[in-house]
Order: sequence, then C-alpha cells, then structure tokens
Amino acid sequence: MTTSAPIRFRVFSLNCWGIRYLSKNCKERFVRIGDLLNQEQLDIALLQEVWCEKDFLFLKKKLSSIYPYSHYFKSGFIGSGLAVFSKHQIHDAFLYRYSLNGYPYMAQHGDWFGGKAVGKVLLNINGLKIHVFVTHLHAEYCREKDSYLPHRVVQAWELQQFIRHTSAAADVVILGGDLNMHPDDLGTRLLRNYTGLQDSFNEAVNFDGCEEGHTHISENPFTNTDNLVPFGGGIRIDYILFKGSGEVDVSCKSLSTTKGPVPGHPFPYSDHEALTAEFLFTPTTKGNGCSERQSDKLPELVNTVNEARTEVKVGLHCAERMCHTAARTGIMGLILLVLELAIAAVPLFALGAEQPFPKASFYLLGALCFAILLATLLLYVFYSMEVKALQGTEDQMRLALSSLQERLKESPKVLSSDHL
Amino acid sequence: MTTSAPIRFRVFSLNCWGIRYLSKNCKERFVRIGDLLNQEQLDIALLQEVWCEKDFLFLKKKLSSIYPYSHYFKSGFIGSGLAVFSKHQIHDAFLYRYSLNGYPYMAQHGDWFGGKAVGKVLLNINGLKIHVFVTHLHAEYCREKDSYLPHRVVQAWELQQFIRHTSAAADVVILGGDLNMHPDDLGTRLLRNYTGLQDSFNEAVNFDGCEEGHTHISENPFTNTDNLVPFGGGIRIDYILFKGSGEVDVSCKSLSTTKGPVPGHPFPYSDHEALTAEFLFTPTTKGNGCSERQSDKLPELVNTVNEARTEVKVGLHCAERMCHTAARTGIMGLILLVLELAIAAVPLFALGAEQPFPKASFYLLGALCFAILLATLLLYVFYSMEVKALQGTEDQMRLALSSLQERLKESPKVLSSDHL
Repeated sequence: MTTSAPIRFRVFSLNCWGIRYLSKNCKERFVRIGDLLNQEQLDIALLQEVWCEKDFLFLKKKLSSIYPYSHYFKSGFIGSGLAVFSKHQIHDAFLYRYSLNGYPYMAQHGDWFGGKAVGKVLLNINGLKIHVFVTHLHAEYCREKDSYLPHRVVQAWELQQFIRHTSAAADVVILGGDLNMHPDDLGTRLLRNYTGLQDSFNEAVNFDGCEEGHTHISENPFTNTDNLVPFGGGIRIDYILFKGSGEVDVSCKSLSTTKGPVPGHPFPYSDHEALTAEFLFTPTTKGNGCSERQSDKLPELVNTVNEARTEVKVGLHCAERMCHTAARTGIMGLILLVLELAIAAVPLFALGAEQPFPKASFYLLGALCFAILLATLLLYVFYSMEVKALQGTEDQMRLALSSLQERLKESPKVLSSDHL
Repeated sequence: MTTSAPIRFRVFSLNCWGIRYLSKNCKERFVRIGDLLNQEQLDIALLQEVWCEKDFLFLKKKLSSIYPYSHYFKSGFIGSGLAVFSKHQIHDAFLYRYSLNGYPYMAQHGDWFGGKAVGKVLLNINGLKIHVFVTHLHAEYCREKDSYLPHRVVQAWELQQFIRHTSAAADVVILGGDLNMHPDDLGTRLLRNYTGLQDSFNEAVNFDGCEEGHTHISENPFTNTDNLVPFGGGIRIDYILFKGSGEVDVSCKSLSTTKGPVPGHPFPYSDHEALTAEFLFTPTTKGNGCSERQSDKLPELVNTVNEARTEVKVGLHCAERMCHTAARTGIMGLILLVLELAIAAVPLFALGAEQPFPKASFYLLGALCFAILLATLLLYVFYSMEVKALQGTEDQMRLALSSLQERLKESPKVLSSDHL
C-alpha cells in the first residue's frame, strides 16, 4: 500500500441476456450497453451472460479507449458468460468453475452448458490491491419447487470459499453479479455471513433506482411477469457486494439501477436492470478493519452453515436416488437385451422348425435396449459425479462447522476473526 | 502468529496406487501404509490414489489415535483419490478441480474418471497458519509422444494459480503429491518459478533414499520397467515442496524415501516410493522473507510462462482440429441418415412397384447413423469444452505475461515480489 488519499471507485454490473438469435434485440442492446459504459466512464464493468465471444469482442473494440483492459472468462461448452472491462490494468485473472450447475439433459434451461463460474481479476490502484470478483449462479426457474436449490447452495458455498481463500491479501474486495438469489435467501446469507461482504444496497448513502433495488422487474418487456407477481412486481437478485480490510476503509457513497427502457429507445438494456455503485476507499491505520464485526456474527454463521448443510443433504438424498434409478434402469435394459438375444438364439438351435424370424422387431428392440443402456450409463456417471460433489461439500461444511463452533467457544477470548 | 519457538513439522506423501481389484496386494498394502503412518507419527500425511472410500475409512479408523483429523477430497466420477491425515485440527478444506484431465473415452488410462484436483487444508499450529496442498496430476503414459502434455501444463498452471491466490495469508505453504512431471519439466518449472516453492529434495540438509530421489523405480515389482529404461531405472515425479513467508523461515532438515519392499514383506507400499520430509519453522522478524529471491527469477519466469503458453497453443490447435473432425463426422452421419430416409421413402411413393423392402439393412444402417450422430455430438461437446479451457488458460497466461513483463521493467525499482 503506497497511497493515503481516498480513492473514488465506480463499479457497474449487468446481466446482459446475450443469447444470440434467441434474446430479443440482442445486437442493438449490446450497442446501447457499450454506449452506456463509455458514457459512465466507470472504473470497472462486470458483465454476465455475454454468451457469445463476438459480442465480447464487439464491446472490447467499442470500449477500448475508456476501458483499455478486459478479460473474458471461458469455461464449459458455451462459456461462463462473464466479462470484465477495466480502466485499470488487470494484473491477474483466475477462474473457479462451480462443481454443480444443473443437468445437461435440461437443455431448455441451458445452465449446464454455460459452465457457470466465478472469475477474479486483480487490480492495483495507487498500491491498493483490489480483488474484483464476478459471478453468475444457476437460475431459479420455479421458486415453489426449486429442484436446483441444492446446486445453487453448493455454488454459494464454493463462491464464499473462493472469495475467502483468495482474498486474504486484498485491501479491497468487490463482488458483482447475478446471484439468482433474493437478499434473505440461504445462499445470500451464507455468502455474506461467511465472507463479511456488505451489500451496497443496504450500505449506500444515496440510492437512486427501482423500488427496493429490484433488478428484475415486471415492467421489463423481456421478463415473464407471471413469475414476479408473488413478489409485488420485482425482485432483487443482482448485487454489488464489498469489503474493506485492516488497511482500507470502504464506504459506499451511492448505488443506482437503470429504470427500464434505454433513453430514446423502446427496449431496456437487458431483462435485468444494471447496477452502478460508487465507493470511497480510505486508507486507514492498520487494525481498524471490520474484523470485530464478524466475530459478533459467529452464531448466525453457524446457523446458516447448518441450514446450508441440511439443504445439501436433501440434494444428496435426491441425487443418490437418481443414481440408483439410473443403475436399476440400466440393469433392466441389460436383462432385456440378454433375453432378446436368448429368444433370437432359439430358432438358431431348433434347426428343424422353419418359422420366419421377425428381424425388424428384433433390431428395433435391440436398438431400444442399447439406447436404454447407453442413456442410463451416461446418467449414472453424471449422477455419481453429482453425488460426489454434494458429499464433498457436505464434508467441507462439517469441517467448517466444527472449526466455527470451536471459535465460538473461544470467542470471548479471541475477538479477531482473522484468527485463521 | 503467537509463537516464537521453532516448530518441527514432518510431512509424508505417497501415491498409494489404490485401485481395488486391479492394483496388486491393494488391501495388504493399505494395512502396511497404516502401520507405517502410525509408526512414523508425522504431523501430516498426504495420500494420493486412495480411489476407494472404503480404504480411506479403513485408514481413518486405523490411524484415529495418532491422526485424529482427516479429510477425503471427493470429485469427479470415482473421486480425486486425495486424502489427508493430520495430527493437528484441520480448520478448513477447499478443492479445486482441474479444468482438463484427459479424455473420457480413454477408459484404459482412467484419468478423466478420477476427477483430478488440488486439495487444500488449513492448519493452525501455535498461531502459525500452515496451508497444506495435496495434488495428483495427469499421468504420463508415453514421454516421447505425450498427447496429455497440454492437459498437464494446464493443470500445472491452475495448480500454481490456486496456490498463489489462496496462500497469501499463509505463514507456511507445503505441497505434496505426485506431479507426474520430472524435476526439469515445463510444468514443474512453471509451478516452482511462479509460486516460489522450493524442492525439499534440493534443500534438505540430509537425504536418505533412492538414488537421485527417485520415487518411481524399476526395482518396484508393480512398475513397468520398460518405461524407466531411458531414465537409468528411475524417475523423480513425487514431491514435497515448501515455502516460508515474511513471518516464518522454513528450512528442510531432512528428506527420505522408502526403498522398495515393506520390511518383512515381499511387496512394496505402492508402485511409487513414499516421501517423508522434516521441516523446521522458525518465526522471524517481519520482512525477512524469500521475496527478493523471486524478483531475481522474473526473467526465468517470463520464459517459462512463454514456453507453457506455446504448449497450450499446441494443445489448442489439436483440440480445435478434433472439434472440427467431430463436427464433420456428425454432419456426414446426418447426411447418411437423410439419404437413407429418402431411399426408404421411394417404395412408399412408388406404390405400384412391389419390391421387398430390406427392413433389416434399413434398421441396421439407421442405428449406425444414429450412433455416429450421438457419438460425434458428445465428442463435439467435449472437445468444445477442451477448446474453451485451453483458450481460457492461454488468455490468463497472456495477461500474466504482460503483468510480469511490466514488473520486469520496474524490477530495478521494485524489489519486493509481493508488489501484487
């Protein structure tokens, strides 16, 4: 750290809904997003759902004078969709792919093919180490019967782990992205309680934007309004979270959201609203950090991890059941195939009897058995991997819980949360 | 950090070759490994290729009095095979799965199914934060024509990234495992130069073990000696690497390897030799760390990253070619299917002509076309993911290079390597 003057730092986050040929007004919207970013002259822009590299390259070119540095995080089949444009040099980039991210056969939801992840870029502004994270978690398609909840909880767990483990040397931590979780959802609490990240919506001195900071609103022409009716017409699922350190005090001066249509155009920037947060980084005397605060939150954290562990166990139970079903169906397919071969062998040995052999049915049934075998084999491999990932997370949670509970016992003695 | 007396810390690492029903003497060897660990009373044991959870649970029970803490890292279809047994409480565990790890259709090599990864556990000994990493990289099946080299280089890149990003707050960093790379291989250099980790074989004051520290020797009855002939009968591919910090000076007092058969038994512990390293952690006055050393190595690091980038590009070229081949074959399969359907449709319309329709050939050919389509689709998805992962790594390398080159220019001014 080589500076002592406060630094103004402006962050932008938007889920761009950039599915070429499927998202409405995709190309025009990227032009408008580029215009907005050039006009706003932010320090860093964190974009999600930039699915097509051509759109990233278009933005890169368009933004090159204001944002000379950029990074596009590649993973999975289509990509992670995560892109960063920065006014400041990006010194390092690192990607963590979530171990669970939906199912490949749920092609209509498409999350699996996106290879969702959390990306990290390192900036150094006047000697301040700024660790900026961008992520996009699995979508929630049905809140009442959310079959992806365990996957999203695992993602939130891995996200907090990644941030905690990789930002120990950070002076400032910023996370922006579409978490697909409401502010009080289990995953959001897990993330905030464990990392100590603060929500810019709660902390901002000035707020200008949609009611209650909603980023997914029913007025949006690209949004299925039916899903939003139970929530009074809008939800807040996009966030800019932040944290200072013992060395730097971070305050959020303002937060704003876009409010519907692009000025002068009939369509909005995306099916989400964009967030812009303004921070002030004030170098402070060492030790004045937010560590004490976190220690107070230990009991709440223990409860949240326990709750998350229960959710992971529910997912594990379900994945194990699916794994067994796949195995059973596969065995049935195998038995059917063996039976068919046995039946086909009968006329072969009964040489005397001259019955016409039903070749067509034989081949059709054989192909069916083979298809069942192949499909169940693939499903078995997939579900086994899901089981392993869920078990692994549950093990990590158990370990973390016993360590947290120990710290809780010691907490009257140990006030500093960076004990470990 | 709350201590000032030197701490003696002993680390064990072994690739256990624990493939149930396939590895020879598997069960007996785990009994002997357990005996050895109980007898040695180490601080931490890092095991690889503990493929079966039952073997982990067996060891956990057997070792419970000396090593009350353990963690088994689960990932992929079979698991990561990584297990840790510790005398000291494990406060946190985190797993990073490598984005590339062989091919699922290379079932005889099996690496893909293993879900290779790097695991991290956190210990706290008298206030010292010890970050211990265990890993196992993709095997090298043919050194002359190593088709997995780009995958291993990507793994080495991700390993160094994971260690660098997650150990900023560590007082001591230890990495143990089977890297499947020789000491001067590109991946080993990349790992050591970038992280500043030191090789206990080079640094140990006392060494007792196989010639030149070999851990994979031709005398081993489980080893295919043909592969080792060009290397004089042994190679060193298992490592215990270490690093101190500004707060703690780490020195390696001794390193030893097992030397063939288990005493009193006709078989060795594994197809690899085990490593045991003894370290001394001496708390030091702040700033006395190894930072200056790394700064001297910047030009070498730039060269190594450049070399790695070239290797990744070679892999990328190959993966792109495979991706195109899969796409072309798939299109051929589709054309064949359409043609067949067209031919089948001819007698349907030519109602007058009464020719016997070759049903059996029709179904067989149809099934073949369908199988081609399905296989090429799966391969296309797989190779696209490989391309994305390689492109992503190359992008990260390019970013890192420009930052390193900048530091190189500044290096006469900036001596501290923890500038970022």
